[in-house]
Amino acid sequence: MESTRSSKSMKQRLHSVLERSDGGFSGFDIFIVSLICLNVVALIVETVDEIHDVSPLAFRMFDTISVAIFTVEYVVRIWSCTAEEQYRHPVWGRLRFAVTPVLFIDLLAILPFYVALLAPVGLIDLRVLRFLRAVRLLARIARLSRYSSGLRTSAGVLNAKRAELITVIVFLAILLLMASSLMYYAETEAQPDKFANIPQAMWWSIITLTTVGYGDAVPVTAAGRILAGVIAILGIGLFALPAGILGSGFMEEMSKRRQGPRLCPHCQREIHE
Amino acid sequence: MESTRSSKSMKQRLHSVLERSDGGFSGFDIFIVSLICLNVVALIVETVDEIHDVSPLAFRMFDTISVAIFTVEYVVRIWSCTAEEQYRHPVWGRLRFAVTPVLFIDLLAILPFYVALLAPVGLIDLRVLRFLRAVRLLARIARLSRYSSGLRTSAGVLNAKRAELITVIVFLAILLLMASSLMYYAETEAQPDKFANIPQAMWWSIITLTTVGYGDAVPVTAAGRILAGVIAILGIGLFALPAGILGSGFMEEMSKRRQGPRLCPHCQREIHE
Amino acid sequence: MESTRSSKSMKQRLHSVLERSDGGFSGFDIFIVSLICLNVVALIVETVDEIHDVSPLAFRMFDTISVAIFTVEYVVRIWSCTAEEQYRHPVWGRLRFAVTPVLFIDLLAILPFYVALLAPVGLIDLRVLRFLRAVRLLARIARLSRYSSGLRTSAGVLNAKRAELITVIVFLAILLLMASSLMYYAETEAQPDKFANIPQAMWWSIITLTTVGYGDAVPVTAAGRILAGVIAILGIGLFALPAGILGSGFMEEMSKRRQGPRLCPHCQREIHE
Amino acid sequence: MESTRSSKSMKQRLHSVLERSDGGFSGFDIFIVSLICLNVVALIVETVDEIHDVSPLAFRMFDTISVAIFTVEYVVRIWSCTAEEQYRHPVWGRLRFAVTPVLFIDLLAILPFYVALLAPVGLIDLRVLRFLRAVRLLARIARLSRYSSGLRTSAGVLNAKRAELITVIVFLAILLLMASSLMYYAETEAQPDKFANIPQAMWWSIITLTTVGYGDAVPVTAAGRILAGVIAILGIGLFALPAGILGSGFMEEMSKRRQGPRLCPHCQREIHE
Repeated sequence: MESTRSSKSMKQRLHSVLERSDGGFSGFDIFIVSLICLNVVALIVETVDEIHDVSPLAFRMFDTISVAIFTVEYVVRIWSCTAEEQYRHPVWGRLRFAVTPVLFIDLLAILPFYVALLAPVGLIDLRVLRFLRAVRLLARIARLSRYSSGLRTSAGVLNAKRAELITVIVFLAILLLMASSLMYYAETEAQPDKFANIPQAMWWSIITLTTVGYGDAVPVTAAGRILAGVIAILGIGLFALPAGILGSGFMEEMSKRRQGPRLCPHCQREIHE
Repeated sequence: MESTRSSKSMKQRLHSVLERSDGGFSGFDIFIVSLICLNVVALIVETVDEIHDVSPLAFRMFDTISVAIFTVEYVVRIWSCTAEEQYRHPVWGRLRFAVTPVLFIDLLAILPFYVALLAPVGLIDLRVLRFLRAVRLLARIARLSRYSSGLRTSAGVLNAKRAELITVIVFLAILLLMASSLMYYAETEAQPDKFANIPQAMWWSIITLTTVGYGDAVPVTAAGRILAGVIAILGIGLFALPAGILGSGFMEEMSKRRQGPRLCPHCQREIHE
Repeated sequence: MESTRSSKSMKQRLHSVLERSDGGFSGFDIFIVSLICLNVVALIVETVDEIHDVSPLAFRMFDTISVAIFTVEYVVRIWSCTAEEQYRHPVWGRLRFAVTPVLFIDLLAILPFYVALLAPVGLIDLRVLRFLRAVRLLARIARLSRYSSGLRTSAGVLNAKRAELITVIVFLAILLLMASSLMYYAETEAQPDKFANIPQAMWWSIITLTTVGYGDAVPVTAAGRILAGVIAILGIGLFALPAGILGSGFMEEMSKRRQGPRLCPHCQREIHE
Repeated sequence: MESTRSSKSMKQRLHSVLERSDGGFSGFDIFIVSLICLNVVALIVETVDEIHDVSPLAFRMFDTISVAIFTVEYVVRIWSCTAEEQYRHPVWGRLRFAVTPVLFIDLLAILPFYVALLAPVGLIDLRVLRFLRAVRLLARIARLSRYSSGLRTSAGVLNAKRAELITVIVFLAILLLMASSLMYYAETEAQPDKFANIPQAMWWSIITLTTVGYGDAVPVTAAGRILAGVIAILGIGLFALPAGILGSGFMEEMSKRRQGPRLCPHCQREIHE
């Protein structure tokens, strides 16, 4: 009986360290964030052959140690989640906890290591290995976002501006399709390699309307240039809309978090602006 | 008599299904929107030779069936429009209804099919065929915009900001002409192929002032580069103006739709803007 | 005596037609604006050899007739300006009127024609002729701006935001100089042709910081790319500032012109926002 | 005793001329700012071989004279700083004053001259000389920023928007890493020279997400283009965020400086923000 209680309280203590809900950072959080940051840097730097070849073993060892720590962390998270009311059931609770997006990303950050380790050498080819590496890196970067308040703010913004964004995106999709179709019919004869079909013309449209303008696909006919000029002038303003909506939403959301209602510091009455 | 009444009520029922005025979506609307979307995807994907050549017949059949459905829809719309007061006259009412922009686009979405079908083979060449295909695709994309509230919002914005937009556009046109003329005289001697005349220099101006910057026409002389630097710094702010006007207008229009009417803070009565 | 009075009243009538001060457009204004527009189009289209060579005489004649009309207009403006109190003196008043910017541009729009006509053939070379043509075209485009309310608005904006603009421009000039110097020292060894000196590196800086990004000068060394990345991320926000200041000033100025103070339409009291 | 007092008062007079605290410009400030401006222009123009070679001696002499003046100014500043309460101590006070950022930049603007002069010829190679020149130019440009109110405003803005900027920058760093990793895995096989490793892909990401778009690294595979299109549309809005935050902060800071303090509309007392 005693042992069960102490085990339970240890589980609860572990759980409260791992899953803080007050928004602050514990010492453990700082350790994990630092480890993930080092991991991301290592995985990025590893792709530079000159650096990787200095000591491939060091990279390999650092990855192994990191995965070991992340695995322990993952297992303890799964084990201790039953401390929370909603995941109380020892089997179904843990399963439901394991399939939450956050835990799923935690799993993706370690799984590729074991797959690459356990798969029979003959069965795993270079493409699969590259895919596993991509998943591993992306999942570890994604793990960082759990600790970034920017992501939570963005989620709030996307929710608050949902209606506007959908309206604008449908509208922009129609514009994009029209611009691509027009440019395809205007340029395909003169440049059959760069405007071979409408999906290719769509590449031109996106790169032009976002004002990136690489210059890899550029209209050369008079009709194409007149069309492109009109599309550029008209379309750019409209493609800047979602950016504006997201940007102003972000600012609103952030100032909302910082302030309660605004009060006059002298008479304490609320000031409406 | 009975037959006339039942025919009339059927016409009215059809009409009210086809031309909903309450802004919602009927099941029929969803069917037509889905069909147009599939159509647009098919017409775009069809331009990719690798996909088209898998089964040209499938594309041909899907187009034929779609046109058949759109034709029935078009004919029923024209037939049932007399249910509305303003198009009551059996001939002139229907004609006036047929030339409204919305119905005209519906016609353009099906007409190219019949023109290509009925035209004597010897009389129709590749250029005409391409033109018919472009019209068909653009008209079908345009049909989608009827169901997008973004388009209605934009029409409202263009109307509300008319005066500002005209002032700014005249001003920008003057700037564009000046920039193009200056660059033509600065660069034509050094690059007679890229700045051969002022309309060509205008291509440079538009691509630079919108910050797309393909790099296909770039000043190379010292005078041209100094001019281009000054034009870029001065002009970009001004070219961003219509985007800003449209953007802020869009946001206003959208928040107006979401909020109720504006009230005077003194007497609490509604203020129309 | 009678003749003097009638001449004076004719002068005043002419003057009031030519120099309307109420901001509206007279029939004469519309005629002149149309003529200038046609002129600008002709001078632009003339630079396209294929069009010019169709009928060089027509372009020559249209220019001669236009200059004749503009000359008459100019002479009458100068002659009738004494009707205004501040230019009353028959000699000094007219001289002072002739050197106002607006009248000076009017003169520049016709003078090149006479210079090219009267100069001894041997004395005028191609470069001078091109310069005269550039002046002629720019002055005629500039004449249009007299009738554009956009220009007057801009003048108001520049005046209202003077302090902000000067602060920001000094700040940006310092940033531009620093970015150019850094990039010159980072890239001159690797690309001695594209970053040969700091003024050339300044071309890179302007094209990058305005986000035009032609791609004609691109850093290739690791140090240069890291610097360029940092400069791009930091600098672009700051280079967008003058655009933002001008843009918001433009909007304020325009809404100020449209509205008086805002009143509640029911109780007619002023509403402060 | 008398001599000490007069020396002290001379010191105080010198100090108050050199370190004005009321924000205005003394005649001495104008002289120094003009000299620095001339210096910066000379150092920039000097890098153009054609101009430098006209009279290398003139540039050398102008630099020597400038450094002499700056050295006198620097020495007097250090000597007279004890007039201020906080740097009263003749040794430690002067040392603490010498390590303030402003004085440190003043030193950097003259030190390279003496290092190049005093170093044994055999010991200083071209790379060190270039580094000294870069430091000299950057420090002199940086000296200008002391007199620019733009810099002080920016410091205020960075402080006021600290929290927003950190949140956004962490968020953008995560996005940048994800975009770079995805593009590396998508493109490295097709373009092993341009997407050789993730840091190289990061160059692509920065140039694309800031919409500069040089076109030196462009995705060519279908997967890479689809990814790039999605990244461009999603990411650009988010990369424009810091610019928007800084821009709006700049405008707020500037209007705050122009306007008086904010008053509560109920009790009319001042509100500090």
